[in-house]
Amino acid sequence: MSSDTVSAMQRLQALRAHLHAVGLQACLIPTADPHLSEYLPDHWAARAWLSGFDGSAGSLLVTARFAGLWTDSRYWVQAQQQLQGTGIVLMRAGAPDVPDTLAWVQRHLQAGDRLAMDGRVLDHAAAVRWRAGLRACSIELVLDQDPVAAVWSGRPALPTAPVYEHRPPHACRTRAANLAAVREAMGVAGARWHLISTLDDIAWLLNLRGADVEYNPVFLAHALIGPDDTRLYVAPGKIAPELASRLAVDGVVLRDYGALGQDLAALPSGQSLLIDPARVTEGTLVAAQGLRLIEAMNPSQLFKAIKNSAEAAHIRDTMVQDGVALCEFLAWFEAALAAGQTVTELDVDARITEARSRRPGFVSPSFATIAGFNANGAMPHYRATRQAHARIQGQGLLLIDSGGQYLGGTTDITRVVPVGEPTTAQRSDYTRVLQAHIALARSVFPVGTPAAVLDAVARMPLWRHGLDYGHGTGHGVGYFLNVHEGPQSISVRAHARAHQDMQAGMLTSNEPGLYRDGQWGIRIENLVLAVAAEQNESGPFLAFETVTLCPIDTRCILRDRLAPEERGWLDAYHQQVRSRLLPHLDGAARAWLLARTERL
Amino acid sequence: MSSDTVSAMQRLQALRAHLHAVGLQACLIPTADPHLSEYLPDHWAARAWLSGFDGSAGSLLVTARFAGLWTDSRYWVQAQQQLQGTGIVLMRAGAPDVPDTLAWVQRHLQAGDRLAMDGRVLDHAAAVRWRAGLRACSIELVLDQDPVAAVWSGRPALPTAPVYEHRPPHACRTRAANLAAVREAMGVAGARWHLISTLDDIAWLLNLRGADVEYNPVFLAHALIGPDDTRLYVAPGKIAPELASRLAVDGVVLRDYGALGQDLAALPSGQSLLIDPARVTEGTLVAAQGLRLIEAMNPSQLFKAIKNSAEAAHIRDTMVQDGVALCEFLAWFEAALAAGQTVTELDVDARITEARSRRPGFVSPSFATIAGFNANGAMPHYRATRQAHARIQGQGLLLIDSGGQYLGGTTDITRVVPVGEPTTAQRSDYTRVLQAHIALARSVFPVGTPAAVLDAVARMPLWRHGLDYGHGTGHGVGYFLNVHEGPQSISVRAHARAHQDMQAGMLTSNEPGLYRDGQWGIRIENLVLAVAAEQNESGPFLAFETVTLCPIDTRCILRDRLAPEERGWLDAYHQQVRSRLLPHLDGAARAWLLARTERL
Repeated sequence: MSSDTVSAMQRLQALRAHLHAVGLQACLIPTADPHLSEYLPDHWAARAWLSGFDGSAGSLLVTARFAGLWTDSRYWVQAQQQLQGTGIVLMRAGAPDVPDTLAWVQRHLQAGDRLAMDGRVLDHAAAVRWRAGLRACSIELVLDQDPVAAVWSGRPALPTAPVYEHRPPHACRTRAANLAAVREAMGVAGARWHLISTLDDIAWLLNLRGADVEYNPVFLAHALIGPDDTRLYVAPGKIAPELASRLAVDGVVLRDYGALGQDLAALPSGQSLLIDPARVTEGTLVAAQGLRLIEAMNPSQLFKAIKNSAEAAHIRDTMVQDGVALCEFLAWFEAALAAGQTVTELDVDARITEARSRRPGFVSPSFATIAGFNANGAMPHYRATRQAHARIQGQGLLLIDSGGQYLGGTTDITRVVPVGEPTTAQRSDYTRVLQAHIALARSVFPVGTPAAVLDAVARMPLWRHGLDYGHGTGHGVGYFLNVHEGPQSISVRAHARAHQDMQAGMLTSNEPGLYRDGQWGIRIENLVLAVAAEQNESGPFLAFETVTLCPIDTRCILRDRLAPEERGWLDAYHQQVRSRLLPHLDGAARAWLLARTERL
Repeated sequence: MSSDTVSAMQRLQALRAHLHAVGLQACLIPTADPHLSEYLPDHWAARAWLSGFDGSAGSLLVTARFAGLWTDSRYWVQAQQQLQGTGIVLMRAGAPDVPDTLAWVQRHLQAGDRLAMDGRVLDHAAAVRWRAGLRACSIELVLDQDPVAAVWSGRPALPTAPVYEHRPPHACRTRAANLAAVREAMGVAGARWHLISTLDDIAWLLNLRGADVEYNPVFLAHALIGPDDTRLYVAPGKIAPELASRLAVDGVVLRDYGALGQDLAALPSGQSLLIDPARVTEGTLVAAQGLRLIEAMNPSQLFKAIKNSAEAAHIRDTMVQDGVALCEFLAWFEAALAAGQTVTELDVDARITEARSRRPGFVSPSFATIAGFNANGAMPHYRATRQAHARIQGQGLLLIDSGGQYLGGTTDITRVVPVGEPTTAQRSDYTRVLQAHIALARSVFPVGTPAAVLDAVARMPLWRHGLDYGHGTGHGVGYFLNVHEGPQSISVRAHARAHQDMQAGMLTSNEPGLYRDGQWGIRIENLVLAVAAEQNESGPFLAFETVTLCPIDTRCILRDRLAPEERGWLDAYHQQVRSRLLPHLDGAARAWLLARTERL
């Protein structure tokens, strides 16, 4: 039994003792923080600390006799391994016979029982759902306790990285203009105040960046925009006096990170507060009880999703830098393999980050590199570790999904590289994924088309052959911000979500895939910018400009299966990649680029 | 000034006098009846009676100084003509600068004003919306008055057509089984009672049909399902005693059409009533105030949308009958034109109905035939009238959209026939629409894919060239029931609607189009049945079986533009049409079928 397993059992035991002591029958620990971020500071990683399962998504439900971890299909294999021996049951969220956490609680708890969730990390919309669902069963929902805190000794402190300014020329909008735009939207919504808790919204709004979590250049803060000032709640010392003065010019007042509650409570009763029910926690809103809530998506969500032309120009330049790094890496990789050197998945991660680090404007990776050889590539969210990783050798496919944060944009790209001679089955899969990628890349559609419906266009080349993949086809990408942002989502499953209209300037990934359990995984990902196409009596149309610049390996393609327009797209793309990158490359990387961008 | 115009002005004047007399500042007259039907009995055609505009959709808002008719783009041309001189302003619903009726009222009425809508014809969901919207402006919503009734002398009586039974072999489910299925769904929803007001739901539930409105074989009724019996509210005399006895066997009790209110009011207070908020009117629910409403889609919506295999078999047979009628008509049509006979759009309607009438099982047309030559075809909802119709002559395209009600299914088909030699521009448009049609027809997709997302697959061949059309691509079709039914809708605009999951057995139209104002219109429509396709580790897939049988005119096709798989689909379709219809045809129609189903 590993020490991790022992820890999980001991921690669970301590938690149960505490629950019993304070009269709670159950406790649900989600994966969330007060800012509802995708990546959490360690301080908020309670679910991982308790269970030992460290995937990025999951909820742990603990009662006196049951402990279950709900997580989605991406993590079933990993969770199964990490939960072994802990007594925690893996609940395969999304499987047809598995109830969701609320349904489980409704079925297994008794009337009169009390269930605790930490309201500070529970979004308002979810709280409304839980409250209604538990009221129906006469179960009490306790939101003002965090049972984990009572048993978590040595809980990590909150991060303290300094905050810095995103400056021109890379910052292409002024703080004043951003604030004015949001205030105008507040006016339309009839709101006097607006509370923002999501870190990328705050970073965008104020042209500030930070390093409080890995990969996302953001910092822990809340913002409260009022008629006269904007209050930024951030830990003392994170913002240097000089920056504070610059912020003050734009009416931004610094307040202690913990002062939000008292400030909200002090607002005149009955005044209107705009909040995004999916982007503010219930705990935060406790202090806003006297206010009239106006619920709508944070206006900054849409503003930051739509890149302006100056930002688009920087993104195109950044793609050249990223493309150069990728060519240098790939040229090295192929040469190293050919020379018989030992290359592991971890080496791929290290080398690709090293190549990016040499590029001007590079800040950090934009997410943890996924380098998966053969069967490892079949796990869409695989991450090689020091304990478990593969050496790249023999025959197969290597999937590399990586990206960088640059001052002039955020990148995210996936390529599949053949090692040895690819088999016909591998080529067949690769070609179908490429066809899906091209179908979306070539799309033209009316302004305002819901992003969700474009997913069917991408998937049809796979669906037609009874093939599919379990993740979305496209997510929004920030501008030197989070690599995953909304509101648009090219995903069939997002069809009922609001704010899916595609608009010019939106930057989205195009990443269809295909995964053969235990064999190989394929994903081909570029970023695409929605740009104006034809305007006629049918209205204005949009098309996608593929901005990512890196060859798509043609050695895996079954050429005859491609239609003339598909071959035409690929040849034109490679022509574009060559002409944009060649001036920046020499030596082996240059020769590699020339070889890999030959006409099909 | 026409007499219609004078009538509209006089009626409006009378209505305004009445509004003044009873202290109402405004009155909104929608296009609706107590059953929220698409086709209304004349008794409920108040909007058309008042305004003179007789399109199938529109709302008339009348205040002391303003009268406006809101209708969607299908009817702008027609409404403009019919409203001329009436003083009623055409409000182009859906145009970017035109507020909807609620927004208009909020902007133009004063606090304290009173607005009347006839609650008997207003669906519950809309009533909730209006109540909230007017409360915010302190405008009173009056739902228990029908101001039109006070001024409408000679208002037509309710229809009195007899009700009859849909019997085996065409009826493929028993009344008892339908009732059991709905009761099971009520149980799952926790409802003791279930009220149904929508006529196709009631007709389906009880295997009954009627003829109270044109085209839809339904009858005016409400149904209240309880634990012990099913009460059917229908006018006395419509159901013969023998049928009443047969209904009684299944626990169906007849009650007077007007007795629903008192029965609802008599239900024990606090008991649960399942209603579909979009399919029951506010006026009907007034009597249900003591009950606990459970809101969900009528369970019968989904049951009737999913055709069982026996129904599918009848549909395939019915398509043979319908195809034979179409071949006979089209052979006659081409010969008549070639012989120089005078053929008008009205003749097309008459002849096509005549051909269908000869087929076994035929009951009636399933909607008003659209036969539009050239510019008339560019109006998707054009209907030729005695006063205004075109002769088919010279050069151009004739669009024919028609369908039949048969005991074994409902049909709906659109074909475009060239008159003279089609131009290259016409062929180009025709070919693109055909490519859109084929793209959807060839679709394969996972079970549960939202219908909305498939629309993008159909439209992409048009979108890619900056072309689009203003209507949905596919609507559900009833089984000897309404030609338009839900819940699935292959329409980008339906992306946020619930219950869009495609399931095996759903019968849906595939009808992309292209319309050139003042020139020509193209639409190619077949019905498609969702059928099981591959089942593998990616889950079960569905494909579309095209069930409509009638040649798609190949003389309008730019052959070289079709991809090999598109040509392959069309040839296979024509092979299928030929082999299914040929045994039933002789003479000119047989020769015509052979010619029109030749390989491309």
